[in-house]
Amino acid sequence: ITSKLPRAGTTIFTVMSRLADDHGAINLSQGFPDFDGPQALRDRVGWHVENGHNQYAPLAGLPALREAIADKAASLYGRETDPETEVVVTPGATEALYCAITAVVRPGDEVIVFDPAYDTYAPSVELNGGRTRHIALRHPDYRIDWEEVRAAITPETRMIVLNTPHNPSGTTWSEADIEGLRRAVDGTDILLLSDEVYEHILFDGRQHVSLLRYPDLSRRAFCVFSFGKTYHATGWRVGYCIAPRELTDEFLKIHQYINFSTNTPMQFALADYLAATPEFHLGLGAFYQEKRDEFCDLLSASRFGIEPAAGTYFQLADYSSISDEPDTDFARRLTIEHGVGAIPVSVFYRDPPGQKVVRFCFAKDGETLQAAARRLATL
Amino acid sequence: ITSKLPRAGTTIFTVMSRLADDHGAINLSQGFPDFDGPQALRDRVGWHVENGHNQYAPLAGLPALREAIADKAASLYGRETDPETEVVVTPGATEALYCAITAVVRPGDEVIVFDPAYDTYAPSVELNGGRTRHIALRHPDYRIDWEEVRAAITPETRMIVLNTPHNPSGTTWSEADIEGLRRAVDGTDILLLSDEVYEHILFDGRQHVSLLRYPDLSRRAFCVFSFGKTYHATGWRVGYCIAPRELTDEFLKIHQYINFSTNTPMQFALADYLAATPEFHLGLGAFYQEKRDEFCDLLSASRFGIEPAAGTYFQLADYSSISDEPDTDFARRLTIEHGVGAIPVSVFYRDPPGQKVVRFCFAKDGETLQAAARRLATL
Ligand SMILES: CSCCC(=O)C(=O)O
Ligand SMILES: CSCCC(=O)C(=O)O
Repeated sequence: ITSKLPRAGTTIFTVMSRLADDHGAINLSQGFPDFDGPQALRDRVGWHVENGHNQYAPLAGLPALREAIADKAASLYGRETDPETEVVVTPGATEALYCAITAVVRPGDEVIVFDPAYDTYAPSVELNGGRTRHIALRHPDYRIDWEEVRAAITPETRMIVLNTPHNPSGTTWSEADIEGLRRAVDGTDILLLSDEVYEHILFDGRQHVSLLRYPDLSRRAFCVFSFGKTYHATGWRVGYCIAPRELTDEFLKIHQYINFSTNTPMQFALADYLAATPEFHLGLGAFYQEKRDEFCDLLSASRFGIEPAAGTYFQLADYSSISDEPDTDFARRLTIEHGVGAIPVSVFYRDPPGQKVVRFCFAKDGETLQAAARRLATL
Repeated sequence: ITSKLPRAGTTIFTVMSRLADDHGAINLSQGFPDFDGPQALRDRVGWHVENGHNQYAPLAGLPALREAIADKAASLYGRETDPETEVVVTPGATEALYCAITAVVRPGDEVIVFDPAYDTYAPSVELNGGRTRHIALRHPDYRIDWEEVRAAITPETRMIVLNTPHNPSGTTWSEADIEGLRRAVDGTDILLLSDEVYEHILFDGRQHVSLLRYPDLSRRAFCVFSFGKTYHATGWRVGYCIAPRELTDEFLKIHQYINFSTNTPMQFALADYLAATPEFHLGLGAFYQEKRDEFCDLLSASRFGIEPAAGTYFQLADYSSISDEPDTDFARRLTIEHGVGAIPVSVFYRDPPGQKVVRFCFAKDGETLQAAARRLATL
């Protein structure tokens, strides 16, 4: 059979995690913490499994969880959100991204994505018969030139995919980006897909520029969030989408045929925990900033070039003073010969600009980061 | 925005469950048990959440769980299965059905489905630009006329969707169906999608006719199964797909961009439980047969016409001696006025043949079934 996604191999996260495991390397490639979320949250999962919450949750998510989400959107971002019609809980943010794209992208539609881009955006567009237009952002600042975006818009442009804090670069948006976006989409009916899964992981006093803060933009946006990232539970597969009712209605039509509903005991546990401890996320920036600082300090003894990340749990590292290899080769060699797994940044580009940069995940405990840095300092 | 699924409303299961809840009715509409799975299985979930199994599982599923699945396929159905390349664990069987369809159906392709059909098949085909050809099966035997199938096949036919034990009719396949299917697809390159989520729920000594038993057919098939149905845990969202490597490769490309992976602690718990108690499923037929018998006995005091189900946890009931209403009206009235939720069977047809039949779910404890039957006997 001929592939519908001929370009797609196995996702880079799986490839590099496997390579790290096969070679007993410290795995700083795929993004996941090597520590657990709050004990009180984890305790609730077992409790609900024992206490009879094991059947289908409602299609859009548990009402108590949707209410907690709507409350958070209101208090944090000033977005009045109707939990009944504007919130859908999904099995991971990835599914939410796919549903949003599938809900609105048709054959021939164009979708603008900024490279380096998370690896699910383009194939999701492609599966719906759409075409992606890639705007390349350059190391090390990865700033969006909004005039370039305006120039890339055509009558076929259906959607722009946004992502702040940005994976893999670790950069974050400023108000100027909102202004640029506004100018770009004003007077069009372009929809927005805003991937905000690292919403609580920003450093050095930065504020998250959520699209939810801007009613003129969020009225045309699917905004996607992740409990896995916030509560150190990427394997629970719980995320959500906030969008105006008209968009949520179409989103739900897709979601109901793909996954129907999201894991019930995990939803109950999250709802309980959010009710009891609504402020957990407030400490997340400081928690990860300490890790970023530790990792960057440690790497300052190496030949890697480092601009400390502004957000996310990823740190880019420029290896151009170490090697001339393409980053895919370098990342492999780093894993196999030096025992540290990393992600080559070129794989996030449709047309890689040839930069010499790899991505490390620093959502790891101190000893792991120290051991990795010791190895990296030998290069 | 104009809908990509203009025909789709909210799934009937949600609509009828909500109606039942709103009216305090006994909910025999949406299919889910009102009891829990084995204690030893449930205990493992909390254990794994407490013991650090909270991050991404591998893309295709936990190796131990895939091995248990492959062992089961071999011992139960004689299908030697490679756990590495032929098994994918998914967040629910629904996602597996969607991924299989999305992996191979392209614009213009035709997919044959048998009505009454589970409500996700046709929209999943449609979202991929395919067209469904609906072959209507008639109450009460819902037998497939394989000559009709042969006549429906065109050069555009890409796939046939099969389902035994059959939801909603509760009928099951015999060897004659395999013969018919064989004759229909022989010499074509038509693929098969076999929905076997009720594989362990057959009555009166019937054997499940799994496509996995027939190498000439299963080499072109995606076979989809459900842990939720077998272990009374529909809210855990864990299912899986077995298919030859060539098909699994394409399946995985889709799955990795939609969901990436399936809930980690649930997978660990299932792997543990399957290793310790591989024979749980053997008792499932007898367990549900008792419920079917009880429910059918109770209904014999009513004016509903009953042919006892051969499999699944659904029982059809013919209400033509009670009312002339369309089944959607009747099911609503049953819920609102008589306090028993049911699913109208016509919604599973593209062109409903006008039969007067509703579906009840009997995966309920004895008292619930008795209370429901008392209400139904008054009609
Ligand atoms: C879904 S696996 C990838 C995790 C992740 O978001 C990343 O590493 O970028
Ligand atoms: C996914 S909700 C529907 C459950 C079910 O399979 C049914 O009721 O037929």
